This record gives sequence, structure tokens and C-alpha cells, in this order.
Amino acid sequence: MADTQVVVVGAGLAGLVAARTLVREGTDVVVLEARDRVGGRTLNDEIAGVTVEVGGQWVGPGQDRMYELIADLGLETFPTYDEGHGFLEARGAVRAMEGSNPPFGPFALADLFQAQRRLEKLVDRVPLDAPWTASPELDAETFASWVRRRCRTEDARAFYEIVSEAVFATRPANMALLHVLTYVASGQGLESLLGTGGGAQQDRVVGGTQLVSLRMAEELGDVVQLSRPVWGIAQDEAGVRVETEAGAVSADRVIVALPPTLAGRLGYEPAMPAVRDQLTQRLPHGYVIKVMVAYDRPWWRDKGMAGQATSADGPIGVVFDNSVPGSDVGILVGFFEGEHGAVWGRRTPVARRQAFVDCLVRWFGPEAAKPVDYVERDWAAEEWTRGCYGAHFPPGVWTQYGPALREPVGRIHWAGSETAVHWMGYMDGALESGERAAHEVLEAG
Amino acid sequence: MADTQVVVVGAGLAGLVAARTLVREGTDVVVLEARDRVGGRTLNDEIAGVTVEVGGQWVGPGQDRMYELIADLGLETFPTYDEGHGFLEARGAVRAMEGSNPPFGPFALADLFQAQRRLEKLVDRVPLDAPWTASPELDAETFASWVRRRCRTEDARAFYEIVSEAVFATRPANMALLHVLTYVASGQGLESLLGTGGGAQQDRVVGGTQLVSLRMAEELGDVVQLSRPVWGIAQDEAGVRVETEAGAVSADRVIVALPPTLAGRLGYEPAMPAVRDQLTQRLPHGYVIKVMVAYDRPWWRDKGMAGQATSADGPIGVVFDNSVPGSDVGILVGFFEGEHGAVWGRRTPVARRQAFVDCLVRWFGPEAAKPVDYVERDWAAEEWTRGCYGAHFPPGVWTQYGPALREPVGRIHWAGSETAVHWMGYMDGALESGERAAHEVLEAG
Repeated sequence: MADTQVVVVGAGLAGLVAARTLVREGTDVVVLEARDRVGGRTLNDEIAGVTVEVGGQWVGPGQDRMYELIADLGLETFPTYDEGHGFLEARGAVRAMEGSNPPFGPFALADLFQAQRRLEKLVDRVPLDAPWTASPELDAETFASWVRRRCRTEDARAFYEIVSEAVFATRPANMALLHVLTYVASGQGLESLLGTGGGAQQDRVVGGTQLVSLRMAEELGDVVQLSRPVWGIAQDEAGVRVETEAGAVSADRVIVALPPTLAGRLGYEPAMPAVRDQLTQRLPHGYVIKVMVAYDRPWWRDKGMAGQATSADGPIGVVFDNSVPGSDVGILVGFFEGEHGAVWGRRTPVARRQAFVDCLVRWFGPEAAKPVDYVERDWAAEEWTRGCYGAHFPPGVWTQYGPALREPVGRIHWAGSETAVHWMGYMDGALESGERAAHEVLEAG
Repeated sequence: MADTQVVVVGAGLAGLVAARTLVREGTDVVVLEARDRVGGRTLNDEIAGVTVEVGGQWVGPGQDRMYELIADLGLETFPTYDEGHGFLEARGAVRAMEGSNPPFGPFALADLFQAQRRLEKLVDRVPLDAPWTASPELDAETFASWVRRRCRTEDARAFYEIVSEAVFATRPANMALLHVLTYVASGQGLESLLGTGGGAQQDRVVGGTQLVSLRMAEELGDVVQLSRPVWGIAQDEAGVRVETEAGAVSADRVIVALPPTLAGRLGYEPAMPAVRDQLTQRLPHGYVIKVMVAYDRPWWRDKGMAGQATSADGPIGVVFDNSVPGSDVGILVGFFEGEHGAVWGRRTPVARRQAFVDCLVRWFGPEAAKPVDYVERDWAAEEWTRGCYGAHFPPGVWTQYGPALREPVGRIHWAGSETAVHWMGYMDGALESGERAAHEVLEAG
């Protein structure tokens, strides 16, 4: 006699949506979450008395599932502050940036536009629901070697270095060209991924994105069991048994709503098929430390600055104005990304704060020197996440092991933003994946 | 009060040598092995009544630790059969091969020699004990894109495709150029890695290489505890606690003698530092299915054939005469490598046997069609190995995360062939790593 019909492992967005979908169809569900909180890679925190997110925080056009769910849960959005000019730093030079074109000279701009056009053409060649059927050549080189071959100017190369770290939290060297193409196609184009107004950073959730998970968990009530890390999953013809330190939960099926690199660490009985295990050996996470500083007010706005900057020099790669309506506090958010994250993750919070502030002074001026508060979160150090924003595919992985990404293994189904077809790696992708896994389970009866 | 002074996790060559080194210094040791046998990626089996290895089997010049240990344990070696000509297959054509030069036309040979010279120069630039200090450019592209750029002929490109699958069990797309350079440097050059006589496939162990582990385990007696998979390791200022289903073992220090991708799956308390975890997310194993067929006698020898073949067409990549002195039985060993392994691993043993035999008929003639026996081993399907021959480094990993490979984490030390400076990935490297880890522990007191 099973304890429940379906166990969901992980109470991030994917797991909670899967549970919610199943419960609404009258299915008995237990959600097992390792942490003492829900939300996975979304997490609210506080700076200078203001609620902010130290995890995923933006939504934008095309992310229909997120906007619908936000409304459905009685939440609201507000636009990311996006007025005034930003800055772009590369090779020691800080240049003001108006609009979406980088402040490059005509030769570098032409170089970049040609590369962009070429990239867009390649993006169009990716079959989004089956990237493994793309040409193996696209999967045989790194994004770095493609950029090196396609761009002649240092400026254009720096642009893609910034893009890589800002979007993937890893260097162009670490990813297959095919992965970049797939991810860009999944997110409706590079402009969409990079943009604030009109792009994936357009809107924010009033009260913080973790509220989406908190509200769903509230609805689900005691379906969600916190502080219950899952160690292993056994399955046979009769059902599944999900093992935790506080005892096992048996069910008909299980949805594992963890990123692949964490799903691969569970013990399975019988052991995972070889190709599934080979896949989960190959999907590392990027490295992000999200940092924020607060000031009495958003003084940069008075100077016509958007509070935005991107830098190829680092150690902070991207900065946005992260102030919240209804509060006078001025907040700037930045990211130590990829290799910068790995290097600065070994240092102290005090050193990271200073490095962040040093960048801000360089870009926005001496007023940035004395913030009143600081918060940070190193997602690679988090035992139950192990890196952000999400997984990237090194060369050879999509074409050789891609089909194992969503394919159920017996009574085990896979969710998590990494398994999404659209908005892979984003909150919206997490919702798609949770719905898809729930429907797999419902269809299996 | 600790149960022992040092726990060693894993009774492969690395773990057993570490234990043996420590015991000889008077240290109390417990070895915990998940399987019901010792030897890790070495394993004896039987074909047509003859003992053969379905795991690692060859030793060669420069592998001094292996030769010494073999002698020390009262074992002997014999030379791999290496007389007569081999074959090379590429793009549908099977060509006989005399000596070590591929049977290419002059243009392709010149192309290949130029590439080889260039590769050797790059190999010389790798600081073997710290590959992470090499130029990041060497780590920013795949071996595939380097081959594509450096070789103009399809023959030369096919040669490196074969090399990649034969040596690394993965495609050139999956590895960083820097990884290939490091591995080649670690194994004393590409010729050494590819060769039988004079190379890493020169000699074999009488009775099978698993005897090396079996003899060490015999010496160690009840120090070695089989069928005790380790789930987690907790450490504090007082010592370590190594958790297994049958209870914990406490000690001063622990040596984890597992490949990195398996070491990364254990639970750690406190959690692993971010950079160590990021590293173990990034070191996937190759895919090998080792297959053997037996005939009444080694009939190919009568025809002047060495029983050797390499193929870019597959699905078998490399074949050797694997007969054993003192027996009349003729044995051929082959490998489904890399992508071929992943594809053929999903099929049945009968289908794999037939695919192997079909290759042999193509290369050696119709006498190959009717073997009297067949054995196989899919190492990627093995829960406690998860792929062979060993780990490879995708682009960006050596330069960004390499230092975490051997660096102890508190009371936890790392062994396993992947952590070796010399003969990384080989049995000899496993011995080096076990000795090194044992000395770390001894020096720590």
C-alpha cells in the first residue's frame, strides 16, 4: 500500500508547479524538500529594511506562464528601473552606453553586427525540442572558438565574453556553440535575453519572486515537507520508494525536480541507465555570487544614469538598479560570474563587498563608495543548488546525450528548468517543466 | 575514540596502494569498498576457459610503479602479441598497416606529421604538475576544433578521431585541447600511449591484472571490508566519520580513492567547498564497452596478421590479439568507445556480439564469423564506476578548476588515477595517487 500517489523531489518552482498541477487533478502528492524553505533558486532577503531577491528575480515578455501564475497567486509586477544611460567597460576603458548598441567604434560595431547576424542564422537552425538532431559540427566547438573565428575586433570579442558570463555565468570556453544557440532559441533571441525593457529583465515581482513559491506552498499545505533531503529512489513494477533520513515514502511515481547535476547524485535502485548517468556527469552549473549594496537614495538617477553597467574586466560583470517602488532606498545589484565567482568565492564577504564597491566607483563615481548595507549569496556554495543560474552543456553533450534529458526512467520523471524546451534555465522554464512532468504522470495513469 | 586512524574509500588500485603504504608505516587502516570485490576498473573474467581482463589490462615502459608492484607481489608479465600487420579502416576503406605509420598517401602523411609536430610542441608547453597554469587559450577550444584547423586531409582527421576514442573513449569534441596535451604529457607522448611494443600496451600480467589488487587485498586481510558502499563523510576538528549503511567508521583522516565524478556524489558535512564541487560536476567519464571473442586457435597469425585493427568507421574502434600464452585459444579484444559505446550500450549482448564479429570479418576475413565464446563489460553501466577508461576534462575546466583536483579538504584526501601527475588515467597513475595521498596523511600526522 503506497503512502501517496506521486512524490515530488524538490520544492523549487518546478516541483511546486508539478505538485499543484497534480493536486488540482485530484492526485495525492507528497513534496520532499531538502531545505527548510521552498523556492529553490529563488530566495527573498532583506537589505536596508527592503525585501529583495538574492536568487532569480526577473520576468519578461514571452514568459507567459510566469505572468499567469503571478496573477493567479494574487501577486503583481513592477518594471525594472530602466531610465538613463548605462556603462560598458572593456580593456580598462569605461564608456557610456545609450540604447542597446554597445558604445563601439564603427569597425567594431560592423564586426559585431556581422557576428550577430551569423549567430541568429545558426540559432534558426536549432530544432528547439530536439537540439540533439542539430549538426554535430555545431556541437564540436566551444562558443569561445566560434567567437574567435567570427570576430576580428577585441571589442566584439569582449561583448560575447560579457554575454556569456551575464547569461550563462560561465566563460565562452566552457560551453558548446550548440548550447548557446539552443539557449538563445529557447529564450526568444539574444536581445530578449539581454534586455531590460522588452527583454527578460523587464519586470519584477512586488514582494520578491520567492512569494511565487511561498504562495504555492501555502496552497499545498502539508503536502510540502521541508528539511527532508532525499538520498535515494528505488523502483520496481509495483511502484517507487523514496528514501530520506526520516524514513521512506512509497508512491506510484516520482518527479525529480532537481537540476541534473544534483539528480545524478541520488542513489538509484536499479542504477540509472548508463546514458542517463553519462548525461548528469556532463551538466555543470555556472558560478554566480549575487551581491547588493544599498544607499540612502538612488543618487545615480539624478545624474541621468540607469544604474546599469556591464564589464569585461570584472570582477563584477553586470549591474542593475535594484531599488524597489515605495522605498527611498537606492539599491544596486551585481554579479560575480563564472571564473570571477570561483575566484572571489574563496575570499571573505568583506573583500567581496569592497571589490563590488570598487567597480561601482569606477563606473558611477565616488558617491558609490559608502553603501549603508550589503547582502550576498554564493549559489555554488549552497549544498542543495551548487551553482547558478543553471546548467550549461559542454561540447558534445547535446548531440551525444541530449535525448536522456527529459526521457523518464521507468517510474521516474524529470523536471527542473534545465529540462524545459522554452525558457530553459529561467523561472518560466521551471514552470513548463513542472507542468510537463505532471502531465507525463497523469497520462501514465 | 576513533575506530581506526585512516579510512580509505574504494578498493581499486589507488585505495589498496594507499592502504598498503599506510599499513607498512604502522598506521591503522580500514578500507571500505562498495562492491563485493576489489580491483575497481580492473577485473578478471573468463572466456573459453581462459582468464582474461574485462577491465584495464596493459602495462608499458615508463610505468615503473606497476612493474615494481607486479614483481613485489610475485606476479609476472608477458608481452602483448605484436607480430604481423594490422589494419586501419576509415571512410569505408580497410588498409593494411605495417609498422607504426598509418597507411596514408604522401599528402595525408605529410599533413599528419605536421600536425603531430605541432601537437608535440604544445605538449612540451604543459606544466605537468600544474596544467592550470598553461595558457588559457589551450583550454578554450576542443580537440575537435584544433584538429579541424590543423589538419587539411580527411585521413589525418580520421586518425585523431581514432586516437581520441582509443585513448580517451570519447570524441575529440568532448575534450579541451589542453586536456589532450596534459594527458599525452602525463603518458610520455602520443606514440607511447598508442603503442604495443615500446608503448603503453606492451605487456600484460600473467593471470590477469586484477591479481595485483587481489594480492594486495590478501596482504591487507580484514583491513578491507567489501560490500560497504560509503554514503557520506562528516568531518570536524576531532576527526572524520565515514557513513555506510552498516554503520559509521570514525578515524583521524580519510582518503577518497574514487574517480572525481563518484567522489562528488557522496554527502559531505560540512558541504564541499564550491570550487571542489564545481570541479567534480565537470569531470565526466568516457564510455567503453570492452568485448572479447574466442576461437579454437589464433588463426589470424597464420596469415601474417597481428590481430590488430583501428577503425574510424566503427562501431568497434580498436582490436588487439588478446590470446594468453599456455593456451591454444585465440582471443580478440575490441572496444565500443565513446559515442559508439553510448549507442550500443542500449542494445542487447547478442547484437553487440554480432556487431563486433561483423567488424572482425570486415578486417580479418570470414574465419572471424564463428567465435566459440564471447564476454563483454559495459563500464558506464556499472554503478560503482560509471564509465571508462577514466575522466576527461571539457574546455575551461583545467584552467578554472584544476587546482581543486588534489587539494585536500580538511581531513579528506583525494586519490584515484584521475589525480595522478604521471600516467593519469592508467593503472600506474592510480598507484602514484595512492602513494601520494598516503604520504599526505602521514605528513599530517
